[in-house]
Amino acid sequence: MFEAAELGHHIDKATYKAEEPGLREALLDLQYQLHERAERSVVILLSGVPTAGKGEMANKLMEWLDPRHIATHAFGTHSQDDAGRPEMYRFWRSLPPKGQISILFGGWYAGPIWEGEQQQDFAAWQREAEKIARFERMLASEGVLLLKFWLHLSADELKKRMKALSDNPLTAWRIADEDHVYLKHYQRNLEGARKLLMATNLADAPWRVVECVDENFRALTVGRQLKDALAHHVAQSGQTENRVDAPPLLAPVDGLRLLDTLKLDQDLDKKDYQRELELLQGRLNGLSRDPGFRNMAVVVAFEGMDAAGKGGSIRRITGALDVRSYQVVPIAAPTDEEKAQPWLWRFWRHVPARGRFTVFDRTWYGRVLVERIEGFARVPEWMRAYNEINDFEMQLDAANVIVVKFWLAIDDEEQLKRFKAREEIGYKRFKITDDDWRNREKWSQYIEAASDMIERTSTPYAPWHLIGANNKYHARIKVLQTLCETIEARLARRQTADKAAHKKK
Amino acid sequence: MFEAAELGHHIDKATYKAEEPGLREALLDLQYQLHERAERSVVILLSGVPTAGKGEMANKLMEWLDPRHIATHAFGTHSQDDAGRPEMYRFWRSLPPKGQISILFGGWYAGPIWEGEQQQDFAAWQREAEKIARFERMLASEGVLLLKFWLHLSADELKKRMKALSDNPLTAWRIADEDHVYLKHYQRNLEGARKLLMATNLADAPWRVVECVDENFRALTVGRQLKDALAHHVAQSGQTENRVDAPPLLAPVDGLRLLDTLKLDQDLDKKDYQRELELLQGRLNGLSRDPGFRNMAVVVAFEGMDAAGKGGSIRRITGALDVRSYQVVPIAAPTDEEKAQPWLWRFWRHVPARGRFTVFDRTWYGRVLVERIEGFARVPEWMRAYNEINDFEMQLDAANVIVVKFWLAIDDEEQLKRFKAREEIGYKRFKITDDDWRNREKWSQYIEAASDMIERTSTPYAPWHLIGANNKYHARIKVLQTLCETIEARLARRQTADKAAHKKK
Repeated sequence: MFEAAELGHHIDKATYKAEEPGLREALLDLQYQLHERAERSVVILLSGVPTAGKGEMANKLMEWLDPRHIATHAFGTHSQDDAGRPEMYRFWRSLPPKGQISILFGGWYAGPIWEGEQQQDFAAWQREAEKIARFERMLASEGVLLLKFWLHLSADELKKRMKALSDNPLTAWRIADEDHVYLKHYQRNLEGARKLLMATNLADAPWRVVECVDENFRALTVGRQLKDALAHHVAQSGQTENRVDAPPLLAPVDGLRLLDTLKLDQDLDKKDYQRELELLQGRLNGLSRDPGFRNMAVVVAFEGMDAAGKGGSIRRITGALDVRSYQVVPIAAPTDEEKAQPWLWRFWRHVPARGRFTVFDRTWYGRVLVERIEGFARVPEWMRAYNEINDFEMQLDAANVIVVKFWLAIDDEEQLKRFKAREEIGYKRFKITDDDWRNREKWSQYIEAASDMIERTSTPYAPWHLIGANNKYHARIKVLQTLCETIEARLARRQTADKAAHKKK
Repeated sequence: MFEAAELGHHIDKATYKAEEPGLREALLDLQYQLHERAERSVVILLSGVPTAGKGEMANKLMEWLDPRHIATHAFGTHSQDDAGRPEMYRFWRSLPPKGQISILFGGWYAGPIWEGEQQQDFAAWQREAEKIARFERMLASEGVLLLKFWLHLSADELKKRMKALSDNPLTAWRIADEDHVYLKHYQRNLEGARKLLMATNLADAPWRVVECVDENFRALTVGRQLKDALAHHVAQSGQTENRVDAPPLLAPVDGLRLLDTLKLDQDLDKKDYQRELELLQGRLNGLSRDPGFRNMAVVVAFEGMDAAGKGGSIRRITGALDVRSYQVVPIAAPTDEEKAQPWLWRFWRHVPARGRFTVFDRTWYGRVLVERIEGFARVPEWMRAYNEINDFEMQLDAANVIVVKFWLAIDDEEQLKRFKAREEIGYKRFKITDDDWRNREKWSQYIEAASDMIERTSTPYAPWHLIGANNKYHARIKVLQTLCETIEARLARRQTADKAAHKKK
């Protein structure tokens, strides 16, 4: 991987001076085209050996390009800037909107991928590498060009350079302790890097290794690669994904769908409901104030047919919580800032911080429900969404953000009854629109899409809870019960884990 | 102020039970109307005596209303959550978009207003109170309904309640040490509150004091006031500001305008330019790494006619800085998330954290330039913008965010020359649009508006720097010089201040 980057590449000053102006002009022209069309975005990720020149290279790019349409992102230690949110949260926040470029220092290659490596935990390392690979494929599918540069120096060069920098009082500040550690274990570090680059050397986002002994060579190499990649990327604008459309999914040939088999009618009279409601709300409130809860967070996701009782269930949850501890997010049409990002971005932005609840009224599953049925998303888009969603939820779970998903199921007679009631009750008239009536005509398509969804996104870490909701009392109780039990299970798991960790010491 | 809130107000259970359902229905109906029209927003600010029930009241409101369209915000200590940004930054971030409601705990009444009070520094206190009053008038003018509730308890009631809560192990956690301190100095605290409420008891946002001995009384009082205020607010939707339009400003009767008197042509040849540029960029880079700079930040604001050389000057600034230390923000049309907020919101969101630069290519001054001339803003809107802008910049300065504003001035012949050049040079063709040619026809209107702007927004803490820019070399040098000198002056001021503080000890 690094052999070709230790050959002593060199570009003389004359050659550089001769080429730079034309290169800069071409880059600017491409950047403005990218910005004008505002259909795609670019992420330039700079990684590599210390002192190889990540900062200098970024400065050079900013000098060549128009800095008004570029954002740069360096990342502090994980814990500081994300209040316990998943590792990838801050990278999602740093993605460029369409027409823009982001330069990331290290990016997701600076994170926990190295922990697995250092702990010799190959499985953990592999999980991280695969997570990264899936993330980068998603970016490619979403029209984000990812350019990954590894700025390389041999051990001797690194040593020479660190000495030079330390000797000069004006530059000594640039050498950190970890750089000395890196040099000490150079071979081991590089072997780890090689493994990682190999594992993430994707067709969608290959690594570009650049020898950095000579800065003219470094600049021209990165510049030319960027130029070609940009030209190719801009030329593709307007094209839809150039992948073969997968054939659409088929309903079971016997017509029997998962949701058809669900029991919808359960009995629960108002008195029992009110008694149980009070108990469950007290229980949930207690859990939200459990010391152990300070290290976790909860995402509650509600899906279901219109008028299935999502709003009512949400009110029974929020009614049990302190207003300072939750946020309710109704999912409507995306804003234009959201449309300018990969589709999951608008959900990532609402991931709760430690100790908090986010309740989604409709969710990212709209991608494989309404967007699939109305054709807002093309087949390959909603087909890959199943995996992208599972990734998203796995990352939440791994960061100790509990994901609780509810499908509230009613039958069409019940829906009709509720629609009519809404049209009559004053303040409920806002809850019924022409869309609701239109969607109702597509009942069967929704049942089919939902059945596929549940089958493909029920995971051990984020299972679907199917709630028969013709009786709204029963549905609300079941929702609260499930929520409490899920949090309790997680709290118990933590405690045993903590005990075990404690024993070890 | 509090006399009427110590009468022992009480509502019996029966009365409450009888009124609540209708009240809730009316509130929901109004909330949905607010949300449907999405033209105005509501901020409910809860302040008052400890244990009077801010949390309970907020919970009640969330129970009555639809939590999907309400956000609640409690604020930690200032330093924690804003990386050294101005006090009001986090409150701007917590403003509800149109159609939404925010509930704030304490809000801007929890902040430094009390420091001036405690230090018996009446001037400081008054400045804070006036800052708050201007902020609240701005909200009203921007169509944000602000409802301020003071939840009141007498000293005896507070004492009784704190004892009851402490005695019960389930609620003891709710009593914090500062509550005991508050009780100890109840009279002094209340006198301070009275002064503050009086000073901020505006026609646009009056205080509503509510006795909280009886929770039924508390709930019905807040509920009814909210209902009436919402009804009045929603009814006003669609109306433009119901203020008398101020007569437009007039150009000087002798036709002599500030910018007409500016010298535009200065000489600087390329060799001298390049030598000075290198020196100044080194100087700026040094300043950005000065230890003292870690406690400040810089906002650089560029305005001027099209093709005046803003972009070029910005590149010479960023060229001197580490890419990780700055952000360039080009101001274009607002996004729909920005349109849903008070007009200054989209600039507040880019206020730099400590140790960082934000460079604006066009700025909040568009309000009194293009928006005034094109009629995007109505007369009272851009007229009040002068004061709103001065407030904004004063707050930045007070938070040690240096504001450096440049007007790059060229004459129309120079502009024509540059427009033509742009149309010829390949990668520059993106920089010239039909708008540019249209604006050019309004040259004189822009000079007039700019002259008014400079006159009304040149303040000691954020003066305008008028740069003759027919010679772009001279302009760039002057910009860098001014920027360096301004930062150096601030650094020197800090050092003397620190020394003085040191002596004191």
